[in-house]
Amino acid sequence: MYKHLDNIEAPSDLKKMNMQELKELSSEIRDFLIDKVSKTGGHLASNLGIVEVTLALHCVFDSPRDKFIWDVGHQAYVHKMVTGRKDKFDGLRQYGGLSGFPKRCESKHDVFEVGHSSTSISAGLGMAAARDILNENYNIVSIIGDGALTGGMALEALNHLGHSRTKMIIILNDNGMSISPNVGSISNYLHKMRTNKMYKTFKGEVEGIISSIPKIGNRVCKTAHKVKESVKYFMIPGAFFEELGIKYFGPVDGHDIENLINTLNDVKHVEGPVIIHALTKKGKGYEKAEQYPDKYHGVGSFDVRKGLVSGNKTTYSSVAGDKLVQMAKNDKRIVAVTAAMPDGTGLAKFKREFPDRFFDVGIAEGHAVTFCAGLAANGIRPFFPVYSTFLQRGFDQIIHDVAMQKLPVTLLLDRAGLVGNDGETHHGVFDLSYLGLIPDITVMAPMDGEELEQMLEYSLDINGPVAIRYPRGAAYSSDFSKTDVNSGKWDVLKKGREVAVLAIGKGVELSAGAVEILSNAGISAGLINARFLSPVDEDAVREVLAGYDYVFTVEDNVYAGGFGSSVKLFEDADSYRGRVYNIALPDHFIEHGDTSILLEKYGLSSEKIASRILNVVSKAKKGVV
Amino acid sequence: MYKHLDNIEAPSDLKKMNMQELKELSSEIRDFLIDKVSKTGGHLASNLGIVEVTLALHCVFDSPRDKFIWDVGHQAYVHKMVTGRKDKFDGLRQYGGLSGFPKRCESKHDVFEVGHSSTSISAGLGMAAARDILNENYNIVSIIGDGALTGGMALEALNHLGHSRTKMIIILNDNGMSISPNVGSISNYLHKMRTNKMYKTFKGEVEGIISSIPKIGNRVCKTAHKVKESVKYFMIPGAFFEELGIKYFGPVDGHDIENLINTLNDVKHVEGPVIIHALTKKGKGYEKAEQYPDKYHGVGSFDVRKGLVSGNKTTYSSVAGDKLVQMAKNDKRIVAVTAAMPDGTGLAKFKREFPDRFFDVGIAEGHAVTFCAGLAANGIRPFFPVYSTFLQRGFDQIIHDVAMQKLPVTLLLDRAGLVGNDGETHHGVFDLSYLGLIPDITVMAPMDGEELEQMLEYSLDINGPVAIRYPRGAAYSSDFSKTDVNSGKWDVLKKGREVAVLAIGKGVELSAGAVEILSNAGISAGLINARFLSPVDEDAVREVLAGYDYVFTVEDNVYAGGFGSSVKLFEDADSYRGRVYNIALPDHFIEHGDTSILLEKYGLSSEKIASRILNVVSKAKKGVV
Repeated sequence: MYKHLDNIEAPSDLKKMNMQELKELSSEIRDFLIDKVSKTGGHLASNLGIVEVTLALHCVFDSPRDKFIWDVGHQAYVHKMVTGRKDKFDGLRQYGGLSGFPKRCESKHDVFEVGHSSTSISAGLGMAAARDILNENYNIVSIIGDGALTGGMALEALNHLGHSRTKMIIILNDNGMSISPNVGSISNYLHKMRTNKMYKTFKGEVEGIISSIPKIGNRVCKTAHKVKESVKYFMIPGAFFEELGIKYFGPVDGHDIENLINTLNDVKHVEGPVIIHALTKKGKGYEKAEQYPDKYHGVGSFDVRKGLVSGNKTTYSSVAGDKLVQMAKNDKRIVAVTAAMPDGTGLAKFKREFPDRFFDVGIAEGHAVTFCAGLAANGIRPFFPVYSTFLQRGFDQIIHDVAMQKLPVTLLLDRAGLVGNDGETHHGVFDLSYLGLIPDITVMAPMDGEELEQMLEYSLDINGPVAIRYPRGAAYSSDFSKTDVNSGKWDVLKKGREVAVLAIGKGVELSAGAVEILSNAGISAGLINARFLSPVDEDAVREVLAGYDYVFTVEDNVYAGGFGSSVKLFEDADSYRGRVYNIALPDHFIEHGDTSILLEKYGLSSEKIASRILNVVSKAKKGVV
Repeated sequence: MYKHLDNIEAPSDLKKMNMQELKELSSEIRDFLIDKVSKTGGHLASNLGIVEVTLALHCVFDSPRDKFIWDVGHQAYVHKMVTGRKDKFDGLRQYGGLSGFPKRCESKHDVFEVGHSSTSISAGLGMAAARDILNENYNIVSIIGDGALTGGMALEALNHLGHSRTKMIIILNDNGMSISPNVGSISNYLHKMRTNKMYKTFKGEVEGIISSIPKIGNRVCKTAHKVKESVKYFMIPGAFFEELGIKYFGPVDGHDIENLINTLNDVKHVEGPVIIHALTKKGKGYEKAEQYPDKYHGVGSFDVRKGLVSGNKTTYSSVAGDKLVQMAKNDKRIVAVTAAMPDGTGLAKFKREFPDRFFDVGIAEGHAVTFCAGLAANGIRPFFPVYSTFLQRGFDQIIHDVAMQKLPVTLLLDRAGLVGNDGETHHGVFDLSYLGLIPDITVMAPMDGEELEQMLEYSLDINGPVAIRYPRGAAYSSDFSKTDVNSGKWDVLKKGREVAVLAIGKGVELSAGAVEILSNAGISAGLINARFLSPVDEDAVREVLAGYDYVFTVEDNVYAGGFGSSVKLFEDADSYRGRVYNIALPDHFIEHGDTSILLEKYGLSSEKIASRILNVVSKAKKGVV
């Protein structure tokens, strides 16, 4: 039971509240967030940091007529709570429940969907241009973090926005963090503004000094005017934005709701593009999260009093990170690059042990890839662990800067396949397709943690572009006896007679169970670990195509352009008369929910794989085919 | 015969020359460039603009020990001339000849390959980091245009560079143009620096004023100091770069070789990142190119005295541009977006007729796509014509911002397939694959100009994401009687009995000739215009698979994940026992050269297609299969 929160059904309810009540509500919202997220898991610290900003926005503006565009979107929980969805937080991020990101199908208050970083200014500017063309009249507010501002497309959008002169408000939610503390000179610049009290303290004195500048003749007068301008310009922070044609307001305390409301009310009537620089504290109001905002960025369920218990689960991320540390000890050429995610990708230890060979480039996947290409061109061996879905931002750079020059860059695609509760925007289900179409890059996927380690080592021998993709979460550990990866060959884990299952990456784990089920059903199925997507192990494919009646491919990637489709390209060979069947994820966007639920739903659980195979084989045996 | 140029075999030859000789050499180089490019075609205006900068670089630095990284790379002709390749300019951009872009296999002086924009700072920074790790000692110079500086990854790299503090020199080659005149607030900012003479003229007076600021007590003294700093800071242009931690020098006259050499010699010894702002004139030294630098950006062969003769060839670009103008007259929701290429994509007329509905966002494909998504989310129907290869930069944005929300954005992929003389970096041979893997987007390719017009109209009916890809150059015009595109169905152009050829886009034009050859050889081949890549016309595929013994797919895209592979996914169907053969471009990077030469080489000329089909069929008839 919450005194104020229980009565908030729509933004209009906020508008009736006085300052004191809004402050009390802020506190209730924090309690609610901590309570709910501790049970369901989700993004905690970023939402605790944006409570007052969100309330102020809904007090001053009129959503959904006025449009709020949330960058990344993991900080939209408060927005969801005050737009009629607070009763659904028990199902947050669960299959069939509330999404952890803005979703247009959930509410008319969610006007643009998101999950990746740095899109909100582009989207907001598009919406503003549409409004202008249609002669409509409403406000557009893009809320972007200081981390997201290091993303290239946000900067491209600022360049366009300043030039366009259209009316649009940017809230720069500056907490000094992306997921981890921010790096880069834009961040340094913002930090300077946060800390330099000169601006405020001496404002009066500065004006005195300016007026004391002597006026001698017309020409110097002009110069003096210019000097005044420049002083004003410097003493008011935000030169960077003002140079780009965007009016700067701030910095303002992002937890002072009264001040926020006043500022927004002022800014509402300013023509042209405006940026409000709000200083916030990530994790605000939950001590543990304030102290470790990175750890409380995205969390599983936890005990509110005890806080997070650090797990000692061996994940694919930690396997990769630990192995890189080990390799780097023996090879000085090895460096690690991250796009603002040193922890999420398992690089924390590398960063500690080799600070001079560790590069955090900000949320900038495109730059990261080409930066790696530059390193590799000059004799270094860069490894770039990055979530599969985020590397889509570096697609052109992989083709144009890495593959074309055959440079030895190793891309590590973490969270490939289904990621679970983050949903549509975060599933890494396109990577086998978007990497598979690129020439001259070796693409591998390990069946378990041990093989991931081997692949990392093997990538050094390849001396050319390499991509290794592996799933989110606990590393699989298998009992199969395996051949060494550096053969460059696929690995026959189990021989069979009728059916061959060619599986890649997590597909092997899923298919191992399926093969057992088939065996129990009296069908002799072989299992091949197709650990190289490209180059395909052509000998293995030919052998399989010639030796088995039924060949099935299994992958946790979409059908289109995936592993299965690359195997099918071999059917042209004259000697093969059988047929290849593909088992993969459907060619549509996949919703959020537990990975096990989604695998089952989309036919990739061991049981579903087995039953699909049984179905085809039994039909054929009955002579239906 | 050139007095100086004939003696230049290596950069060391330049170092022996005095200023007067270097000036004369500059003039000779321009004559040489105009003479050669007028015969072979190529990039003219940008190279005429960079003569002195290139010579100065080679005089002051020691290539290849010191590394020059050319952004985009189409301005590297002068660099090629003075690094031992001037005798190869007769074969410039011809098959087997000199590339129009830096190529590592051509010369040790080409240290990084390129063709797309905005990569040079990222690559240079990577090389600098490698140098630092390996304790080596040499200079790294990235040469980037003001247009390329609007690309997001260049800005991401600046953010990283300013923070890294490593030694690196950026030459900002500011000619106020990308291919067309630049837009955006960064460009405005640079323009302000170019034109504001205040900075230089009043420097002395400003210093006088500063020293006249009264000193009253310690506290105000500090403030006064701050005021002085700020004035200095403002009067020296480049605040934008200085804020990012990059020392700014300039602006300098980019055609004053003496001044350039002096500046470079100064800068050589500065620690940390440096930017030199050089003002150049695109097309310098050839009057016609100075007057129309955009028209003389990339040219075919021309008469030097008469200049370019504007052709009245109907290209796919002009068909698209003209049709959009026509449609926009009747539908106020239609807008056009370009990433700095209004002319190259056929939008010049649209820009003239609907200036308020035309958006040039700079070299910023990622932003452009999400900007379109924002427009579409608010009721506008944006069309974004862009070269196929450049849209790779917007890959994530198509998935995440357009397709996921099913927004009605129409992407027009110009120069899809082989583009000819620009080579590796410019062929649009991956788009059917990278678009085909994206859910919920309709991907079409017209067989001729007329069908392109129909597809543009049809895209309005679809009310969701659409991509239409079409080739470079003259629009094909066919005699086949066609069904209307808005059926959403493939089109049977010619019925056959034994062989079905499923062709997409330019594949239809190429296959039409092949089918005729087959017919003359006594083989009854049908031709189907597979104008929808996705959604695939499933009925048509099933019909073909059931009705023909041999099915061939034809496309000017790579095999991996292309049109052919999407057809093969249907072979699983129980009722089909035949086989699908794919004809496509090889899965490797394709060199430069005439498109007709490349089509022949890679088996996609009509003759080669026919002979491949004949080969398969005759083998089968002999019972080999």
